Amino acid sequence: MVNVAIIGYGYWGPNLVRNFLSSDSSRVTMVADARQERLDLVTRPYPSIKTTQQPADVFKSSEVDAVVIATPVFSHFDLAQQALKAGKHVLIEKPMTSSVKEADDLIKLAKEKKKALMVDHTFLYTGSVKKMKELIEQDVIGKVNYFDSVRINLGLFQPDINVLWDLAPHDLSILRYLIQEEPYSVNATGVSHTNNGIENVAYMTVNYKSGIIAHFTCSWSSPVKIRMMLVGGDKKMIVFNDIEPSEKIKIYDTGYSVRTDLEKQRILVDYRVGDVHIPKVEMQEALQGVARDFISAIVNDTTPVSDYKMGREVVKLLEAAQHSIKNRGKEVIL
Amino acid sequence: MVNVAIIGYGYWGPNLVRNFLSSDSSRVTMVADARQERLDLVTRPYPSIKTTQQPADVFKSSEVDAVVIATPVFSHFDLAQQALKAGKHVLIEKPMTSSVKEADDLIKLAKEKKKALMVDHTFLYTGSVKKMKELIEQDVIGKVNYFDSVRINLGLFQPDINVLWDLAPHDLSILRYLIQEEPYSVNATGVSHTNNGIENVAYMTVNYKSGIIAHFTCSWSSPVKIRMMLVGGDKKMIVFNDIEPSEKIKIYDTGYSVRTDLEKQRILVDYRVGDVHIPKVEMQEALQGVARDFISAIVNDTTPVSDYKMGREVVKLLEAAQHSIKNRGKEVIL
Amino acid sequence: MVNVAIIGYGYWGPNLVRNFLSSDSSRVTMVADARQERLDLVTRPYPSIKTTQQPADVFKSSEVDAVVIATPVFSHFDLAQQALKAGKHVLIEKPMTSSVKEADDLIKLAKEKKKALMVDHTFLYTGSVKKMKELIEQDVIGKVNYFDSVRINLGLFQPDINVLWDLAPHDLSILRYLIQEEPYSVNATGVSHTNNGIENVAYMTVNYKSGIIAHFTCSWSSPVKIRMMLVGGDKKMIVFNDIEPSEKIKIYDTGYSVRTDLEKQRILVDYRVGDVHIPKVEMQEALQGVARDFISAIVNDTTPVSDYKMGREVVKLLEAAQHSIKNRGKEVIL
Amino acid sequence: MVNVAIIGYGYWGPNLVRNFLSSDSSRVTMVADARQERLDLVTRPYPSIKTTQQPADVFKSSEVDAVVIATPVFSHFDLAQQALKAGKHVLIEKPMTSSVKEADDLIKLAKEKKKALMVDHTFLYTGSVKKMKELIEQDVIGKVNYFDSVRINLGLFQPDINVLWDLAPHDLSILRYLIQEEPYSVNATGVSHTNNGIENVAYMTVNYKSGIIAHFTCSWSSPVKIRMMLVGGDKKMIVFNDIEPSEKIKIYDTGYSVRTDLEKQRILVDYRVGDVHIPKVEMQEALQGVARDFISAIVNDTTPVSDYKMGREVVKLLEAAQHSIKNRGKEVIL
Repeated sequence: MVNVAIIGYGYWGPNLVRNFLSSDSSRVTMVADARQERLDLVTRPYPSIKTTQQPADVFKSSEVDAVVIATPVFSHFDLAQQALKAGKHVLIEKPMTSSVKEADDLIKLAKEKKKALMVDHTFLYTGSVKKMKELIEQDVIGKVNYFDSVRINLGLFQPDINVLWDLAPHDLSILRYLIQEEPYSVNATGVSHTNNGIENVAYMTVNYKSGIIAHFTCSWSSPVKIRMMLVGGDKKMIVFNDIEPSEKIKIYDTGYSVRTDLEKQRILVDYRVGDVHIPKVEMQEALQGVARDFISAIVNDTTPVSDYKMGREVVKLLEAAQHSIKNRGKEVIL
Repeated sequence: MVNVAIIGYGYWGPNLVRNFLSSDSSRVTMVADARQERLDLVTRPYPSIKTTQQPADVFKSSEVDAVVIATPVFSHFDLAQQALKAGKHVLIEKPMTSSVKEADDLIKLAKEKKKALMVDHTFLYTGSVKKMKELIEQDVIGKVNYFDSVRINLGLFQPDINVLWDLAPHDLSILRYLIQEEPYSVNATGVSHTNNGIENVAYMTVNYKSGIIAHFTCSWSSPVKIRMMLVGGDKKMIVFNDIEPSEKIKIYDTGYSVRTDLEKQRILVDYRVGDVHIPKVEMQEALQGVARDFISAIVNDTTPVSDYKMGREVVKLLEAAQHSIKNRGKEVIL
Repeated sequence: MVNVAIIGYGYWGPNLVRNFLSSDSSRVTMVADARQERLDLVTRPYPSIKTTQQPADVFKSSEVDAVVIATPVFSHFDLAQQALKAGKHVLIEKPMTSSVKEADDLIKLAKEKKKALMVDHTFLYTGSVKKMKELIEQDVIGKVNYFDSVRINLGLFQPDINVLWDLAPHDLSILRYLIQEEPYSVNATGVSHTNNGIENVAYMTVNYKSGIIAHFTCSWSSPVKIRMMLVGGDKKMIVFNDIEPSEKIKIYDTGYSVRTDLEKQRILVDYRVGDVHIPKVEMQEALQGVARDFISAIVNDTTPVSDYKMGREVVKLLEAAQHSIKNRGKEVIL
Repeated sequence: MVNVAIIGYGYWGPNLVRNFLSSDSSRVTMVADARQERLDLVTRPYPSIKTTQQPADVFKSSEVDAVVIATPVFSHFDLAQQALKAGKHVLIEKPMTSSVKEADDLIKLAKEKKKALMVDHTFLYTGSVKKMKELIEQDVIGKVNYFDSVRINLGLFQPDINVLWDLAPHDLSILRYLIQEEPYSVNATGVSHTNNGIENVAYMTVNYKSGIIAHFTCSWSSPVKIRMMLVGGDKKMIVFNDIEPSEKIKIYDTGYSVRTDLEKQRILVDYRVGDVHIPKVEMQEALQGVARDFISAIVNDTTPVSDYKMGREVVKLLEAAQHSIKNRGKEVIL
């Protein structure tokens, strides 16, 4: 039985509590949050969970084996470091840290302390992403040519990180999970409409040596909520529309092939539009998979799907994107 | 009565014939196309229209007052030049030419010859775009902050121009029509999956001094057809979904306002999500408006909505985008 | 070469002209309509087609082999009878006639005169309906259990026939085409909101001995346009959404099976929700198929898919529905 | 503080517990369910709630003031009767009882015992239905002409009640809430594909003296989930699409008016298609409103929106529909 504490009881907090509670292998012993009114929301339904406004209480508690850090990004490094130093296993909400340097330091510390260190890229545990992974691994869609993701909605403007750091970690983790090739470089553009230099609309291109292109549209300023991803292979193409209540993944038996017209000295492109297939996708709550993977990493020393390498890679891409935006869209080699 | 000839009877040809035929002020006297099988499609329903495989026949015909050029882009300049020199009025399909230089030369020639020179940016004549123009001019949506357009589908790969030159002219003309401020610079990224250096997936950002950002996603390689545009103002926001058979324009009474939290020394953003309004939009065929504007330019010497300046501005943005792509996304100042 | 005349140049008229013109085996020689302004719309683009306000001119013309009757329903019988008597082949717009009696009389006359008599149930020639037919014939969906159709929109209120006679012929012809079993009885309810006794909202159930149930929702008073059909088999189920620009047909690998729980003396139902498949569907204009089938019936004496039997069966169901509505929903045995 | 017990911890049970727990005026003291594995799901997160497999324990407990009955329909009457006799206030899940007779008996008993008796027609507490009520009361849509509801999905087949008893209570309660006129009669058709005489597909028309028509499509056998309601007024029309995550209610400024063409002695109908308005709708969880209304009925003796009269009226319509189905669609006068 792993005793779990949660630091930060914001939007995601109740989901974390519920999922670690509903597992046979874990229980939730403590929740920390600076805001007493948030702690009250823990106590009413779950009188047995201890609450505190001081993270330090968590670190020194003997009733806590593992800590979930669900606070603003800027505090991730410091809290995770303290937790590891106190001998706790750590699960950090995405993005892992504010810089690659911080990520590297945490990884080093976790290795020294022989503690589990994991990042909650929840999407990697959804039925939809698992299905896409399977379709790529089984070569159903062929060689991937492009990846295009749109994640836009109204709010919540973050005071400390821009819209890419807030929204793109989902899509970047999916990109890194689905495509094995190392990305080569990043371009990004964006703008702040809030006079604080924090971009609320941003676009990011990830370039690959092999010709794959990945693009990300992120916005806190869209009146409509869109969560759509296209993955184009040379055999088939996938559309992942996460707004759909069911039928989230569609596989298009659609493609084009290139041949050379020798006479006219030019390239001809043949199209193929075929059937569409909507596979049944596992509907289990993704966060259950995260909890299970974290507990297994603690108990069995297994490597989670969303491990610290994934967490670090995502931060690396975000860092490069931010650098590109500040340099007017200039390519940043990774 | 204006006698119109059409050069190039491809996909758009039948629409051009039908619209110039159905006007009381024009008739179609001649159609030219190198392909005899295309000309047969003219003769069967319209035996009174003359056909030819030689554009020269059009230019020298006394039964032709005005020429519509609906051929591949690389031939626009040469054909338009010949037509103007032969004393014909000219309507060119978008994009106007392959370069700003060519556009400038045509504009100069048209002025010398005192002939109408117009570019067919059809979208400017749709009820949807007119409605958006009206909403901006009447200050319904307030100061525009961003413009985001996605225009993707499968094919048709063009052998001579990339996907931006093919698809973006629609959206760039709308951008230039709706927003009066001069764009400042362009970034673009893209990739060719056909080994001929012609990008089939491309992304383009247009930057403005005032902080407006405009972004364009264009692809010939998407399994799904999307035509969606967001225009975000500081009062309201517009979603234009051109795939919808009706209800194409939605106005969201949605916004955010920024205030400074002096105590915490940071920016706070307040959201507002309100009602949505779907205005009734004029449903007339846009090409009728183009034909009417062209005939009026000829007969009354009026300036069309989609005039040569618009045509030139769109080419200028495309040229800059192409330059940026070839320079790995580098900002190109306009 | 079959010389075709069209009587009635309303909404459907231009489509009829275009399709009979574009065939190699037919031409359009004459169009009749009582309204001169409608005839003007023929002459402008097609100066070679003769026009008249008198149907009698059509019947006596030696340049007319076949007549398409596209007038209001109440006039179908009289015009078709005259045409057949004059030795013309006849294609009637749906619904065939105002009563089964009239349909029977026309069928008898056509047999005597040895002329083709066909009804334009255009939907039977769409790629979507052909695909559904194929799916049923190849036993993909198994035994059909139900058929549910919704066809609603705003207007056009007809002055002489109710909404079932106006809209349901499409769906009833599809029902009769897809399901071989003879329908057993009809119930229908409806209401008129126009004080003229002509129902503008109506519902119709067709009952079968085997337990199939078919239901039809028809309305001229809906603010939204819906064209949706469900066909439920015991193996799979089909959703036909005709509003979709593509992806009109979806096949759900979904079903339920019934078993008896002996212990508890009750029926248990097991569900199965599986993948969804969207087959590619032929996109050819349906009216081309109608024209081809009509010409072949004339030239080769073949039986059209939408033959007079189909036309009569649809009228029979409509007659029964009307009888049921007038008798407060009472079951009418066919 | 009202002490609440819940009998029946099925699909709806956790929602009931959560909502009565989160109120300041109530707590959940006991949950009864025959299935121990369901009770285990109570104890883990909520160790303070007592559980039992015997409803009798609930009735005799001094820690229970009010009972929520969330069991299969056939048991509602018996359990509610026992609860009332034991002096408990009662909230019953919809539909209230299996017959009007049972409903009447419970109402009589509740009056005698001076206890609150309420039925959980949750939909009446949704922002969408409240908004529709408001639009009708403020005469925005004018005189209601029709009401059309489609509620279809796959499963869950109920072993004891047909699909109308299972699904239609939602829509019938909304009908009765929105329209003040007493319904006049009912027609219904349906079919059972499970050999147990329990209809899994059924259609129901409710007729009104004034010419309003209401129609209900219910199915457990649809591969797609649809929850759509149209309410047509003579001024405007409402579409309520409950599948939409937001934008559930659309108001169409659409209508038709009837005038008499004296010359031609017939009715002419003029259409109007205008703008569409999507009002912002309160997003609060509906069950919170139910809980609040129930507690207020207990504490303040107020009449709930979803009172026993509503419960009885819905059962009355269901009884009539069942009678009509068994009599082959015959009209049943209410």
